Amino acid sequence: MFRSVDYLLRPQSIAIIGASDSSRGGWAQEIYDNLEYSGFPTRLYLVNPKRTEVWGRPVHPNFASIPEPVDLALTIIPSAAIPDALAEGAAHGLKCALIYAAQFGEGGDAEGGKRARALSALSETYGLRISGPNCMGSLALREKLLLYPAKRVRSLSPGSVGVVFQSGGTFQFWLQQAALRGLDFSYAVSSGNELDLDLADYISFLVDDPHTKIIACMAEGIRRPQAFMVAAAKALAAKKPIALVKVGRSERGKAAAVSHTGAIASNDSVFDAVCRKYGVLRCPSLDDLLETCLALSQGRLPKDNRIAMVCYSGGAKGLVLDYAQDEKAEMAPLSAETRAKLAGMIDVGLEPENPLDVGANIGVQAPKFAEICRFIAADPTVDMITVQALVPMSPADPYDLEPLRSVFDSTDKPVLGFGRISQNATDTSRRYQADTGVPFIHGLPETVRAMQGLARYAATLRRGVTELAGPRGSAANLSGEAFDKLLATHGLTAPKSAMTKTADEAAAQALRIGFPVAVKIVSPQASHKTEVGGVTLGLRDENSVQAAAESMGRRLTAYDPKARIDGFLVQEMVSGVEMILGVREDPQFGPFMLIGFGGVTAEVMRDVAVRLLPVDEKTAREMIFSLRGVPLLKEFRGRPPRDIEAVVKAAVGMSKLFADHRPWLSDIEINPLIVLGEGQGARAVDVRVVPRI
Amino acid sequence: MFRSVDYLLRPQSIAIIGASDSSRGGWAQEIYDNLEYSGFPTRLYLVNPKRTEVWGRPVHPNFASIPEPVDLALTIIPSAAIPDALAEGAAHGLKCALIYAAQFGEGGDAEGGKRARALSALSETYGLRISGPNCMGSLALREKLLLYPAKRVRSLSPGSVGVVFQSGGTFQFWLQQAALRGLDFSYAVSSGNELDLDLADYISFLVDDPHTKIIACMAEGIRRPQAFMVAAAKALAAKKPIALVKVGRSERGKAAAVSHTGAIASNDSVFDAVCRKYGVLRCPSLDDLLETCLALSQGRLPKDNRIAMVCYSGGAKGLVLDYAQDEKAEMAPLSAETRAKLAGMIDVGLEPENPLDVGANIGVQAPKFAEICRFIAADPTVDMITVQALVPMSPADPYDLEPLRSVFDSTDKPVLGFGRISQNATDTSRRYQADTGVPFIHGLPETVRAMQGLARYAATLRRGVTELAGPRGSAANLSGEAFDKLLATHGLTAPKSAMTKTADEAAAQALRIGFPVAVKIVSPQASHKTEVGGVTLGLRDENSVQAAAESMGRRLTAYDPKARIDGFLVQEMVSGVEMILGVREDPQFGPFMLIGFGGVTAEVMRDVAVRLLPVDEKTAREMIFSLRGVPLLKEFRGRPPRDIEAVVKAAVGMSKLFADHRPWLSDIEINPLIVLGEGQGARAVDVRVVPRI
Repeated sequence: MFRSVDYLLRPQSIAIIGASDSSRGGWAQEIYDNLEYSGFPTRLYLVNPKRTEVWGRPVHPNFASIPEPVDLALTIIPSAAIPDALAEGAAHGLKCALIYAAQFGEGGDAEGGKRARALSALSETYGLRISGPNCMGSLALREKLLLYPAKRVRSLSPGSVGVVFQSGGTFQFWLQQAALRGLDFSYAVSSGNELDLDLADYISFLVDDPHTKIIACMAEGIRRPQAFMVAAAKALAAKKPIALVKVGRSERGKAAAVSHTGAIASNDSVFDAVCRKYGVLRCPSLDDLLETCLALSQGRLPKDNRIAMVCYSGGAKGLVLDYAQDEKAEMAPLSAETRAKLAGMIDVGLEPENPLDVGANIGVQAPKFAEICRFIAADPTVDMITVQALVPMSPADPYDLEPLRSVFDSTDKPVLGFGRISQNATDTSRRYQADTGVPFIHGLPETVRAMQGLARYAATLRRGVTELAGPRGSAANLSGEAFDKLLATHGLTAPKSAMTKTADEAAAQALRIGFPVAVKIVSPQASHKTEVGGVTLGLRDENSVQAAAESMGRRLTAYDPKARIDGFLVQEMVSGVEMILGVREDPQFGPFMLIGFGGVTAEVMRDVAVRLLPVDEKTAREMIFSLRGVPLLKEFRGRPPRDIEAVVKAAVGMSKLFADHRPWLSDIEINPLIVLGEGQGARAVDVRVVPRI
Repeated sequence: MFRSVDYLLRPQSIAIIGASDSSRGGWAQEIYDNLEYSGFPTRLYLVNPKRTEVWGRPVHPNFASIPEPVDLALTIIPSAAIPDALAEGAAHGLKCALIYAAQFGEGGDAEGGKRARALSALSETYGLRISGPNCMGSLALREKLLLYPAKRVRSLSPGSVGVVFQSGGTFQFWLQQAALRGLDFSYAVSSGNELDLDLADYISFLVDDPHTKIIACMAEGIRRPQAFMVAAAKALAAKKPIALVKVGRSERGKAAAVSHTGAIASNDSVFDAVCRKYGVLRCPSLDDLLETCLALSQGRLPKDNRIAMVCYSGGAKGLVLDYAQDEKAEMAPLSAETRAKLAGMIDVGLEPENPLDVGANIGVQAPKFAEICRFIAADPTVDMITVQALVPMSPADPYDLEPLRSVFDSTDKPVLGFGRISQNATDTSRRYQADTGVPFIHGLPETVRAMQGLARYAATLRRGVTELAGPRGSAANLSGEAFDKLLATHGLTAPKSAMTKTADEAAAQALRIGFPVAVKIVSPQASHKTEVGGVTLGLRDENSVQAAAESMGRRLTAYDPKARIDGFLVQEMVSGVEMILGVREDPQFGPFMLIGFGGVTAEVMRDVAVRLLPVDEKTAREMIFSLRGVPLLKEFRGRPPRDIEAVVKAAVGMSKLFADHRPWLSDIEINPLIVLGEGQGARAVDVRVVPRI
């Protein structure tokens, strides 16, 4: 499933194809300079049929003339010349090519497409691995390989963050800023258009690399969804968190709207479900990606979700409360004992609560402030803590390590420092951060989100990943009475109903079913029930049922004198909260479940929860409680609470039913699923099945 | 309405009360040092009954012994001593006091409360103005008055941004970072608890100040809502934008839920309506406040809302699209002509569209990139433009002014530069920004939000502010038939209905009203209509009406044999989209309107639009179209579109009706307002009026 990245990032020999001191913006020169700067960490060959010497080195006309099979070719020649050059290389044992140039069919142009296919054929035939095209190269920091056309990358240090960005330009600026803030790197790949090697391959490589502890990605598209999920699962198993910025969130699902589930769930919400399942931390911006990696770099994870925050600013306290609400972060309640003791430790007139404002007087007394932070960090309701930190910026600033270091040393919980606003980072601030052990996060929303990231990742690790069990059902069970039975045994209860021939019989059956009932006329001519008034709701006694049935019959006959009336369907009328529950096979990522309130609300308000299958009880409950509309299920305006457990049961049953019959199903959707009062269950009023084509 | 801030920020004489080289963390010393650093810009007196000399200067025991009435007293003494000291000062002509200390009743303590009342009495009696308490002082940059206990503020330069922060600690860090990024300041006030002088006073002062062009605020509470609105209106009239971070967004409305309008509209959504009305730009974070001020500092405003973005990074382009969707920003479509010409200017394979990725090849050719930017800026569909900018950071970096400057010079539209991620700011980057005329915004979400801020402010300027007209109604019209008529003449149409005595009569009236109808039993014993089944919906002919009425009568009698049946209410049954439309008098900010979908959806999904009155047609339409649920009003799942204009008419009518009868009304709410098909109007099914107590 994963292609080897070794020859890209750990080559023993490199050839620069197009070695020239004048080609394409000087990229060959810049990369050569970087190799020279590193003391030529591999054997190096220059290739250019038009030159015999460049940079004082001999130049080979082709691969055939190089004395060994080459591990990695850096192609810095026009795209039109690349397929032939690499074909010659592959025939002579070339293992991997790094293609910087674009124009391999990106905009749909035919010539470029042809070139791309030629390269794919080389991969196919010779096992040639390709990085790019349309990228800006890669960095292997420990190996000192800076295969990137800019001096800027020389300032990066070897470390524990592995980086894969599809966007090569963004890549270097992010790396530069991340380094300035104190991150260092194992490998960094600008993966470009991923004609061959892709995000999944690079992630897999980074998980295998013992130096990499954290993986940072920026991705526009996922080439091989299944491989990506396997790589993500592998990273989770190795406890190497992946933080990721996804470009193109705003794209809507393009699936034909066979079901509402398909219409409502955007591609992005399914990708979000993928990230949730495998603990991939999605970051809303490049800045958040940096802050999240910084938070992860401490290597500590919280035991649960509860955050504590200590500051000496009422403004910061208030803002953190706002952002915690935005991000649905859980603030630690603090124990009664902690609160009682705190009251005597902070400025007069301030509340001993979380977030904690200790006051300006205590705030300027670093040892006292640190004592309070240690005290809060030790509180059993606190799983992680962030503290206001004044980080020295220049060598002239006071460099008092002890207070913040003491907070870090006092606990094994995550401890983050925060600044209320972005600021410059300097050698001094970076050293202070390293010496205290406390990552310094810029900005309050970013601080809250970084802590939420730690919480989510830790929760995913605790929960683990359950993969979908193989199918064990039978296609025969997906229709007729067998299907009704299948639904019923999976917690998907249909409303009581009876098909009757006459108005009299309808009245009698209504009595058996129990009032109120709905009566629908059944006729080939009554397909538009609402137009002819072919449905009557809320009938509460036999007389009304009889009158309603007769009245509908008369109206239909008036509308179409030739109409044939087959009878009347009497149905238990259930009133409750309408939900939608659907499972659909996503063409990229496989089956996912969607839960929302009443089809229309879900569709219009986009208030839905989406998760990959399988959905167990815990996940189902989490989905339901993540909906904005969840108050509808609780006691609401004096109405008793609804049967949430019945929804959980229905969701878990639906997940199992789909998994068992996956080979034959594309969609199952219940819309509406009507949720009755507590203990009274839910009714699958309308079940729609779309078979797999 | 506004108290003078002159003696705080432009004093001719200052007294330091508590002048001592040892008091409270050395604040007196630090402020004295700052005054000395500025060459003592005012006459200065030191006051301390326990000393005769400090810092080589004579010390006065009290105000009486100072040879002139003092303009401003800086009190750096324990809070308990402040009331007496200021009483003595006020009696000797003191004009204003700046109180740094806290403990004036903030936490509700009785002693502090007493001190606060003593100070208020001094304001009352002597007109003594007070800044603070619980603040960190003020800065008047042009006057060189750095009344702030930290050297850090010396690096700030005089300029055009006026700043008011209630949080004194956050204040200095924000100023420092803002200065680093290229902003400079007229006045900066940490306003603390605002016992006397408040945000409204400071804003008014800054609007009057000719040097101030932009006002930046961070506020936790608004002491005098009416004065704040007057100050905001004054700023708008003077074309001085206010950017503001509001702390405490997460607080929920505490109003007793007399109406849904009151329960649904949070305090924050009403404050948001205030900001909308007066063009106050709310910023979600302190970083956004900075970026927004930077964007405003160019002094250009867009003619309309359409944004163009030019970059040389596919990743940046994709992210901007995502953020534009998040922020509901409008991207300029570009003219067909522009698109056609662009195709030949950018890298092969890229789309000539907005956002525009010119490609890596063109990206590195600054003059060509600038040419494209100028070309896009000139497009008639573009109202403002942001361009990817590589800003030199150190004197060693290439300093090529011309390309970016040429874009700025080529147009009078706003031109912003952006970087994809936060980065350091340096003397060089600041100079480059000043020399090119192009503010450099850090971060893509911040860039989109800053441009949205420009668009919103310009739109508010174009629209102007309409204040509520005085009442011209009469209390007598608020009940009975007069009220029905009042509603009808204000676009608030009730459903057709008839009160009948018997089932026969109900059937006859139903025929007159038109089917389908609903029939409700009217009886003192049928208050819980749903429990006894006292409402029947969807009746489509006379027989059904008669049967339903009789059946309800039987059921009620069975439920309560003594029940008295007064008759049956027959009502036009309208089916359509349910909305809620309410106006309520906010105790702080006055009457506001709320529009949402169906009471429950609005309440649970918080999908509501809130605006201050008056609501005109344009505003009503804007409110409706801002709802997430707006697709419900358009053609939806094959159903024809709804009568949006009827909702607009109802909203405008409601606004006028409330304004005319404001003295007698607390709330009016229509829930549901049922919106019928296009051209068929809307029906005010349930109108609820809460009189003003």
